[in-house]
Amino acid sequence: MGRVTRSRMVLRLGPEHAARRSDTLAVEEPLEVRLNGDAFVVTMRTPGDDIDLIHGLLHSEAVIAAGSDLVTARYCDGVGPDGLNTYNVLDVALAAGVAPPDPGLRRNVLTTSACGVCGSTTIDTAMHESRYDLDHEVRFQQEVISAAPVRLREGQRAFDKTGGLHAAGLLTASGELLVVREDVGRHNAVDKVVGWAIRERRLPLSDTILSVSGRASFELTQKAVLAGIPILVAVSAPSSLAVELADEAGLTLVGFVRGDTMNVYTHPERILTSAQR
Amino acid sequence: MGRVTRSRMVLRLGPEHAARRSDTLAVEEPLEVRLNGDAFVVTMRTPGDDIDLIHGLLHSEAVIAAGSDLVTARYCDGVGPDGLNTYNVLDVALAAGVAPPDPGLRRNVLTTSACGVCGSTTIDTAMHESRYDLDHEVRFQQEVISAAPVRLREGQRAFDKTGGLHAAGLLTASGELLVVREDVGRHNAVDKVVGWAIRERRLPLSDTILSVSGRASFELTQKAVLAGIPILVAVSAPSSLAVELADEAGLTLVGFVRGDTMNVYTHPERILTSAQR
Repeated sequence: MGRVTRSRMVLRLGPEHAARRSDTLAVEEPLEVRLNGDAFVVTMRTPGDDIDLIHGLLHSEAVIAAGSDLVTARYCDGVGPDGLNTYNVLDVALAAGVAPPDPGLRRNVLTTSACGVCGSTTIDTAMHESRYDLDHEVRFQQEVISAAPVRLREGQRAFDKTGGLHAAGLLTASGELLVVREDVGRHNAVDKVVGWAIRERRLPLSDTILSVSGRASFELTQKAVLAGIPILVAVSAPSSLAVELADEAGLTLVGFVRGDTMNVYTHPERILTSAQR
Repeated sequence: MGRVTRSRMVLRLGPEHAARRSDTLAVEEPLEVRLNGDAFVVTMRTPGDDIDLIHGLLHSEAVIAAGSDLVTARYCDGVGPDGLNTYNVLDVALAAGVAPPDPGLRRNVLTTSACGVCGSTTIDTAMHESRYDLDHEVRFQQEVISAAPVRLREGQRAFDKTGGLHAAGLLTASGELLVVREDVGRHNAVDKVVGWAIRERRLPLSDTILSVSGRASFELTQKAVLAGIPILVAVSAPSSLAVELADEAGLTLVGFVRGDTMNVYTHPERILTSAQR
């Protein structure tokens, strides 16, 4: 289906230049799996090899032991706003005698209330739930954004010797680090940071930067929007759905922040660039 | 609580040496969250700042809007085999009028049937479910393991220009790449690989190497064990629970495979080292 990557124009910022150029994003879309007609799980994935994916997923969930335990698997129902099949809904029929899992025993699978027929539905759901409008007046200096990953690293309490910990932190518009948290799960690191802010009665986080050590997924972008954070700064790449959500929600999404260069994927108007001054 | 990292002896292999040395692992343990007495979710996380974590998690799940929506959160019940509190079970009481989520609407949360009181329970559950014993006779050349990430990268159909895709692949003991899959989610990439093998009737994968582009989490290690794969080769770090599961399940777990060096965390007996010859 050729939906593994997608091109998008980004604003590339350096110490003395700002230029638009094309960038390639990893595609992230929801896949809804139905078992014998009942909703089973929605997982965020890169489209392609979905039949292999559900075989492996159902095997890890101890639902099937062999390929013959699964009679049919076919795309259906998932029609997008344009009336075309999204190929994001799979109907799976188990062989006679193969029991679907007890809903209470589902494990290790990402579930979501989004119906999963397409990315835009997922984004609508995410935006509908947000209690806050993002601040469109606040501005951030390019140099503060460049320094965010450095501040984050300096702030790690247990400086990461493991190579296996993700970090997330909040910074003020002037670059002061408010809080930093580490976890094997990047979503947990962000939850710990937002949870700290909730307990400190700082929501919405209108004038702060969320800085993360790795990639920017749809889930992390959603957590930023829900907390009223106007700018997400990632050291690595964002996914396609993260960029789409950021675009629609009005979030400034910055990726590949390394040294004095960065890619601005959405809403660059909040950034006061070096080249402007 | 100081449980963010943990030390462990590993076997460090180079082209002409093999030495035992200490390595630092990121701790991964399950946290079970109960809402008003009912099971809500089990998430794999690094211990520490758990109260912040559940505030952020419940906020992202649209259960709470402010800290006052959560009345109490305390560790209880979670007693390990040694009779000590594991600090892995949190009982959360919501304020009057704050509705717990509809179980059918839980979203973006990792759930598991493991009771979550401690890592060993999680491991017991994972091992109990496995249909296959891992092959203890099979051997792999150190050079084949060193080359696995290179083979994996060569085999990527859409060579990753995004910086945002994980890859997983299966190799034979002689280093031939059987299959490679890419995804924004590392668990999906492994599910796609194992799913391919199920459809090809190749389970158990007794004499193959599972190679992954990133880190080795508990979840990926579990997927390898469940598919009968005797060796997992990761480019980056494993988590503490991944190493514990590999140890007990008899899986050879190799991390930081870069150039001609690697760290062997468990069961090095399957590796024919260069230094031995």
